[in-house]
This record gives sequence, structure tokens and C-alpha cells, in this order.
Amino acid sequence: MREDAETPAVARGAVVVDHDGRVAGLDGPQVYVDDLGLVHGDGLFETLLVRGGRACNLDRHLDRLARGSAAMDLPAPDRRRWTAMIDAGLRAWRETGAAGDREGMARLVRTRGREADPGAGPTEYLTIAPVPDRVAAARRDGVRVVSLPTAVDPDLARRSPWLLAGVKSLSYAVNTAALRHARSFGADDALLLSSTGAVLEGPRGSVVAVVDGRLVTPRRDGGVLPGTTQDALFAAADAAGVPTAECDLDVADLMAADGVWLVSSVTLAARVTHIDGIGVAQGDLPQGDLTGGAVIGVAALVDEAAG
Amino acid sequence: MREDAETPAVARGAVVVDHDGRVAGLDGPQVYVDDLGLVHGDGLFETLLVRGGRACNLDRHLDRLARGSAAMDLPAPDRRRWTAMIDAGLRAWRETGAAGDREGMARLVRTRGREADPGAGPTEYLTIAPVPDRVAAARRDGVRVVSLPTAVDPDLARRSPWLLAGVKSLSYAVNTAALRHARSFGADDALLLSSTGAVLEGPRGSVVAVVDGRLVTPRRDGGVLPGTTQDALFAAADAAGVPTAECDLDVADLMAADGVWLVSSVTLAARVTHIDGIGVAQGDLPQGDLTGGAVIGVAALVDEAAG
Repeated sequence: MREDAETPAVARGAVVVDHDGRVAGLDGPQVYVDDLGLVHGDGLFETLLVRGGRACNLDRHLDRLARGSAAMDLPAPDRRRWTAMIDAGLRAWRETGAAGDREGMARLVRTRGREADPGAGPTEYLTIAPVPDRVAAARRDGVRVVSLPTAVDPDLARRSPWLLAGVKSLSYAVNTAALRHARSFGADDALLLSSTGAVLEGPRGSVVAVVDGRLVTPRRDGGVLPGTTQDALFAAADAAGVPTAECDLDVADLMAADGVWLVSSVTLAARVTHIDGIGVAQGDLPQGDLTGGAVIGVAALVDEAAG
Repeated sequence: MREDAETPAVARGAVVVDHDGRVAGLDGPQVYVDDLGLVHGDGLFETLLVRGGRACNLDRHLDRLARGSAAMDLPAPDRRRWTAMIDAGLRAWRETGAAGDREGMARLVRTRGREADPGAGPTEYLTIAPVPDRVAAARRDGVRVVSLPTAVDPDLARRSPWLLAGVKSLSYAVNTAALRHARSFGADDALLLSSTGAVLEGPRGSVVAVVDGRLVTPRRDGGVLPGTTQDALFAAADAAGVPTAECDLDVADLMAADGVWLVSSVTLAARVTHIDGIGVAQGDLPQGDLTGGAVIGVAALVDEAAG
């Protein structure tokens, strides 16, 4: 994907739902200038795929929102309220002309609330908009990635949860910087490495590889964001009798693998075609009871997991 | 300071100035739900002290905003526009009943703009509000800090500026998490350490120590945010004939120092009284031509530097 191939994810026809389930569009401002989610990136978000009028893999996203809230010392999210907000959003989304059969991207946002009004509690809202154009290209063509060393230390991430390594916080600037940096090398995406050279994740997806007939992913407690899509995929693989494992992986392991994917909620699966300019094997996911190519397989699995 | 001693920094009487210099208050929302500063922490901020109706150390803050914008591939800020916005804010601030002789905290915010409207360019605004109550306490009583290891690697920060280690980005959640974590130990503030045990900075201030009659601070290129107040202090010290140095410092160096401060734009200087529960020497800043205690000294210097 190229920079100019990006389309704004929130565009005409977008739906906005506030904390009280009120539905609006993007015609006016709805957040205060002193929101701590804005001035300190102090909050959380989730992005979900909307297909066939349903929010895919919703339970895992709401679970992660709850875990992240606890890690940030935010009050627990009200699951019933969020479910009602999402239902209101999906109803409105189906009614927009933009929706049709088109896939949507739902974004759930939860911040520490306003600095001027600390008693008011978290700011909460969700948006639903057409998926970005890059998604179709990544599913179809796969992605070329460059490996980027970061300072993330897996052992420290385990010992010091306050560093928020496993939290999908609004403080996402380094993730977007990694994508810009990767594009400056002509790549589509990045493969983030730990300080010890371990493969961590993509800036917006989990790494899954096929090694010796197993589905493997980096250890979820080692400084990565535990992926909802990776989790759904592994649960379905387990059920289908396909062996799975979390393990330490380095770039050489991926180069020797039979296939490598970045899996994520909205893109589902983007096959990694090249790492640092070198071609990666293009094997399929292990079959077991799973059929079809990576995207179809993961889509089916995620739908099933969300059922 | 205790959690309950915090007063919202943006309170009644606050002034908000938008990109076009229009002045408003906090009565309504002014930011869109798809602002990339909010959903991705993708932007920058600066906080400045407003004293005697003036914004202290303004040039250094505008310089840092420009450097950070370049580091994040944002268009360069329009200095004339920012100066006009700040002038409008200061005029309005002087007219509020809240202002009087009370100090204010100005916050400049600059984001990548709206996802739905990428051509519109950055979102820019500033707020001015009374300084938080914690400021007076920190100036008067100093702060007890706990040292917290982080994964920041000074060498990697030098080699990989895309990691944004030296940028005051809106992705500030780990800084606020460090403060919460420090308070869970009964401390007032944190002293962040690198992966190699080097002293980096506080979550919202630079470390300055007196060692052998010199003012020393951690190397500014080693994963810390270059401090505007530290820079003003060192410039004034240089002019006054007080020797200064950037160097590698560890906790033992601070324990052996004649005095340690966290210096920052709004608090100016908070003397560090304890590190990890152990008392720190309470010497003054080297005299040279500088007189008075740390707070008075830095305040005078910052005023002078802003002149």
C-alpha cells in the first residue's frame, strides 16, 4: 500500500455513538479540549470488523477493553452499556447508504475523561465507518515488511505491567511512526523487534507463522499486545486439531517458516511476502479442518468465534 | 502530593484559543471524535508557565514544537500564528476573574488533524488555566521519588529517532502511568531509568543535580525529552560562570550529589528530598551570580530567558 492509497477510515456515512447510546454523525465536534485521552493519550481503544451487519469477535474485544481498563486504573467498563452502544451503532450503520454489503470498521474509544471534571468518569464513544482501502490491498497482495528494532524488553514487560506493553492505549504515536518509517523504505508494514531481537508484532497486527505444521505466535506476555484475531484463530485451530504454540521467534525463524501472516481485526490476515526485501515462503495455513486461503480461513474463524 | 490533593488544571475561568485565534471557554466540545491526536495520540503538546501576564520561556517551547513536528513528519508550525494565538490567550486570561496575580498553565496542542479530512492539516489550539495545586506543594516541600526501570535504551534512542524518545508527543500514557505507579508506593513522583540503569528524567521534568560545584543533567540525546527549563537554567548558569555538563548519571551519582531537582516549565523546580526512601543531600544551586533557593533561582532564570 502506498501513502496515497490511504482513504480516511472515518468518512461520509460514518456513525458516531456516545456513552448514552445517542447516534450522530461527524458534522460537529463532540470531545472537549481537555479530554485526557487527547492531551495525555490516556485511554484505550479497540477496532473491530463489521461484516454482514455484525461486529466480529466482539467478546474478545470487550474482554481486552476490560483488561486494559484495569491495567490503567480506569473503572471497569459497563459491558451492558457497551453492548447497547454497539447495537445502536450497528442499527444506524445498516441504515446508512454507505453500509450496504460493505465492511465497516468500528472503533471503541474509552478515555480517562475530562481534566476539568474528574468526577464525571471516562469518556466513551464508538464510531463505525467504511474500512480503509488499504485493507483490500493487504488481503489481496499481502505486505512487504521491514524489521524495526525497538527498546521493548520482554522480561521487563512481564515484570512491570505499569509500562502498559500489553495495553491497547490511545498512546499509539510510536505505532503510527513505525508505519511511516516502514513506508520510507518502500515497505507496506513493519515487523517490530524487541531489544533482544525477538519478533514482537506489527504496529497494528499480531504475527502468526506456520512452522513444522504448527501455528506459532510470539509469547503474548513478552511485550506484545495480545491479539484478539490471533486468539480466535488459535482457538479455532485447537478445536480443529491443528497444533498451536506461543514461543520465542526471531527473524530467521520467520524466514525459515512455511508462511507468515500479520493477523488483525479489520484486515483479518495479510500474508507477509517479504521481510527486509527477502521473500518469505508462501505456504498455506495447515489444513486440519480449516480450508481455504489465509484470509478466508481467518475470516471464517473470526465469524465463528464471534457467533 | 496525594491523589486527592490534585485539582483539575483546566477549571472555571479557563481560556481556549483555536487555530484562528478565536477565544472561547470550556463550555462545549471543540474536537472531533476522529482527531488523530485523540484516537492515535498522534500529535504534540507543550505546557508553559504564565506569570505576570507573560508566557515564560516561550521561544524554547516553540522551538521544541517545531523540532517535534519535524520528527513526526508534521508540517512545520506557523510561528507567527502561534504567537498570535498565545497573545490572544494571554489577553483573555488577564481579563478573567480567575487570573489576577495567579499563575497559569498554558498548554499548546498540535495534532495530525482529522482522519476524515486529511487535507485540512493539523488541529491546533491552546488552553490557559490556573496551575494545579500540586505545583505549590512541590515547590515548597520538594518531592519524594521512586526510581522506575523502563525499557528505554539510550543508544537505540540515538540511532532511531523514529521511536520519538525526544518528542513531547500526546502519547503520554506511560508518563501518567509512572506517576500513578510512584504514588502507589507513597511517593510523589518518579525517576525514570533506562534499560542500562542510567537516570533519564521524571515523567514531567528534567533531572538536574549539583555534583562538585557543577550543574549536571543526563545526556539530552539519550532517550530523554530535552527540557526547556533545564536548557534555560543551563544557559543562565553558563552566562553566570557556573559550570554545567551533560553526562551519564546513575542513582548512586544522585545519592552522592549535593542536591537534586526535577525542573519543569510549570513547577520550575522541585527539590528531590528522597530517592527510593533514602534522603538526598539538600545543598543549594551553585551561587556564581545566581542567588536564592532553587525555585527562586530557576524562576528568575526562566523569566530572564523568556525576556
